[in-house]
Amino acid sequence: MSKLVFAINYKAYETAFNETALEIARAASRASDRYAGVRIVLVVPASTVSRVREIYDDVYVEHADPVGLGPYTGYIPADALKYLGVKGVLVNHSEHKLPYRDVDRVVSSSRSQGLESMVCADTPGEAAGLAYLRPTYIAIEPPELIGTGVSVSKARPEVITEGVKAVKAVADIPVLAGAGITYREDVIRAVELGAEGILLASAVMKAKDPSAAVDMFSEALSSARR
Amino acid sequence: MSKLVFAINYKAYETAFNETALEIARAASRASDRYAGVRIVLVVPASTVSRVREIYDDVYVEHADPVGLGPYTGYIPADALKYLGVKGVLVNHSEHKLPYRDVDRVVSSSRSQGLESMVCADTPGEAAGLAYLRPTYIAIEPPELIGTGVSVSKARPEVITEGVKAVKAVADIPVLAGAGITYREDVIRAVELGAEGILLASAVMKAKDPSAAVDMFSEALSSARR
Amino acid sequence: MSKLVFAINYKAYETAFNETALEIARAASRASDRYAGVRIVLVVPASTVSRVREIYDDVYVEHADPVGLGPYTGYIPADALKYLGVKGVLVNHSEHKLPYRDVDRVVSSSRSQGLESMVCADTPGEAAGLAYLRPTYIAIEPPELIGTGVSVSKARPEVITEGVKAVKAVADIPVLAGAGITYREDVIRAVELGAEGILLASAVMKAKDPSAAVDMFSEALSSARR
Amino acid sequence: MSKLVFAINYKAYETAFNETALEIARAASRASDRYAGVRIVLVVPASTVSRVREIYDDVYVEHADPVGLGPYTGYIPADALKYLGVKGVLVNHSEHKLPYRDVDRVVSSSRSQGLESMVCADTPGEAAGLAYLRPTYIAIEPPELIGTGVSVSKARPEVITEGVKAVKAVADIPVLAGAGITYREDVIRAVELGAEGILLASAVMKAKDPSAAVDMFSEALSSARR
Repeated sequence: MSKLVFAINYKAYETAFNETALEIARAASRASDRYAGVRIVLVVPASTVSRVREIYDDVYVEHADPVGLGPYTGYIPADALKYLGVKGVLVNHSEHKLPYRDVDRVVSSSRSQGLESMVCADTPGEAAGLAYLRPTYIAIEPPELIGTGVSVSKARPEVITEGVKAVKAVADIPVLAGAGITYREDVIRAVELGAEGILLASAVMKAKDPSAAVDMFSEALSSARR
Repeated sequence: MSKLVFAINYKAYETAFNETALEIARAASRASDRYAGVRIVLVVPASTVSRVREIYDDVYVEHADPVGLGPYTGYIPADALKYLGVKGVLVNHSEHKLPYRDVDRVVSSSRSQGLESMVCADTPGEAAGLAYLRPTYIAIEPPELIGTGVSVSKARPEVITEGVKAVKAVADIPVLAGAGITYREDVIRAVELGAEGILLASAVMKAKDPSAAVDMFSEALSSARR
Repeated sequence: MSKLVFAINYKAYETAFNETALEIARAASRASDRYAGVRIVLVVPASTVSRVREIYDDVYVEHADPVGLGPYTGYIPADALKYLGVKGVLVNHSEHKLPYRDVDRVVSSSRSQGLESMVCADTPGEAAGLAYLRPTYIAIEPPELIGTGVSVSKARPEVITEGVKAVKAVADIPVLAGAGITYREDVIRAVELGAEGILLASAVMKAKDPSAAVDMFSEALSSARR
Repeated sequence: MSKLVFAINYKAYETAFNETALEIARAASRASDRYAGVRIVLVVPASTVSRVREIYDDVYVEHADPVGLGPYTGYIPADALKYLGVKGVLVNHSEHKLPYRDVDRVVSSSRSQGLESMVCADTPGEAAGLAYLRPTYIAIEPPELIGTGVSVSKARPEVITEGVKAVKAVADIPVLAGAGITYREDVIRAVELGAEGILLASAVMKAKDPSAAVDMFSEALSSARR
């Protein structure tokens, strides 16, 4: 059975850029060793990739633009991903939505470079459409719960069950659950509902003790029963 | 008298991400030592900053987004610039145009972090408006000449002279000239027309010998008479 | 059995704004009377709606923005559709792509105002996702064929068959085919492949005799066998 | 001496689309007759132009897109303005900001069609840059006051005086003041500060008696001393 996934989205919090970014990477490294059944993916800003990669190597970049290599000042071309040293790319996050064809461009480009992709969806319907693109992972996050501390597993469990069903009807792609995940039981419940991992941000990035948070969520996933 | 500026925009060419990115940084380092009257600024993608900074420290990032630190997945917040280790930020490039207020946000934010900014303008009129924002530099580039090998100094000299005049009527900000700069004499002529530096990309990034190109343009600026 | 649909996208051709816009409306009126099994929908710019409506009343607007009524200068709010006198709204056209949630906003808003919606998709996968929004129609158009004169029915027949299959697996929504439709047989073939109508633009808007084109495509749909 | 301008921005308020849109046009017609020194310009959504034009003919459209006539579904091309029956176009409003070159495209296109343009600016600096485009009018509106009921004339009078100065240093273009204008004295004061007209929205569009508001502001402009 493949590992459950714990994806930490650094977003653009101060902790995504300062020393905490590295502290979290060290915590991820330790937790990865401790919880063998859990894959921890750090999703970081383009400018943070190099520094985090020195500590931990399962790193995605938070976004890529649907362009090739060329005269595109200030963009991160999908086709440049292989040069970043990342394992994959997160795309279509609730805070950075793209039209479908642009998500397609980024997912296809990452695949043709031998890299992974994680695409976000607001709803089971959006997830179903994205499943046709065959990304490595699909993360479903009801946007109204993101950053609230009220978890999708508690407030909108049907989004997970229906999302998993909608995706699996198209292709066997692991579905991650996200939005408002804060407590150990949010994780346990998400997995019971069919999620094969979680995507979260503020519960780690804004935690008083980010390292402890990394360990706690890793342990929770490790204990979750599928 | 302040130094003439040689700004190299890495854009998103393959050479902005691969080993050539570092080779250019080494060439910039050598040329900086050799030509004391020239300031070489490397304008690089966010993902390349860390690696280039290990070799050369006069580095700008190619773009920043008009947002603060917070939940902005996949953006480079203007307010995060100080964490990137850059000296400044290029913004409003012809390939990444923003509304005026967003340029304002980025320039103001960089200033409040003690950093520099270089803003691009298509025309003297756009440059005049941007001068009110008091960026460190203004670079004027007629978009129709960018990447053509036909230089602004030859094809549209009045853009430089009128641009300088329009900017200086507002504030004493150095004006750089760009677009199509390819030959030594393009540089000489730009300075004669009033430019206090040049901004270029393909003439270095797509050169057969990028290091030689760095040296050639640095020498040209060093020889130019104001 | 419901009528086959002939949707004419005026786009922003000169003929969408000048007297030809009204000539096409008159032709649509005549053809509607003549071919009882065909529903002709005119998809027109917001500024053209009033004038076309005086002649023909089965009119959609070409786009609406995902905002409510309020301080949104220069936008056509989805929530204002009922005031436009249209039957529905086209949204997510290949030339005006939106993120999924914005399409959702427009479709939901049109439905809550008792109006119809037609959403465009590049691919069967995009169409499948959009089917979850329950629009009135889904039009599939491979973008690379739009405006070429090479029809989807000939060049990419599998886009129609797979698109129909992908949509019907989600909900019983009529699928229109579009892109490059030029000849009578393109229409016949599209219907044979499962399309319940066609969406086209240049074959009418840029025709030497737009009225004759309206009649020809209407007749073709009328003759097509499902 | 040219007339003072009273520009009413319908925005996308419900009253921009329903019967009030026409009531305001009738009030504008009456006030235009009554106050000879005042030019009343109605700035309306593209979909409202035809209906308002039957009542009153000094009408601008709220926005145009920087494209030509052609395959641009759901856009209002700058080059289509002449077909709309408008006198001009408002562009770059605070709620619909464009990069400088796109404003340039719209202003140039309107001029080449023999039409007028009114461009908005947040600040004197933005206004100065836009003056180089030679629009018919420039309207300065500090965005933080729009819709607040706290007028620019009272809260930020220096924006008007400096804006007028910055524009006139470039070209002799009438400057309108906007943002928060609510009371008769806001208008009087704006003109005293150098404005040659006002641009407002909510004080008419959300008024209990929009017709009375139209009359009141017209009378105020008529009484203002330059």
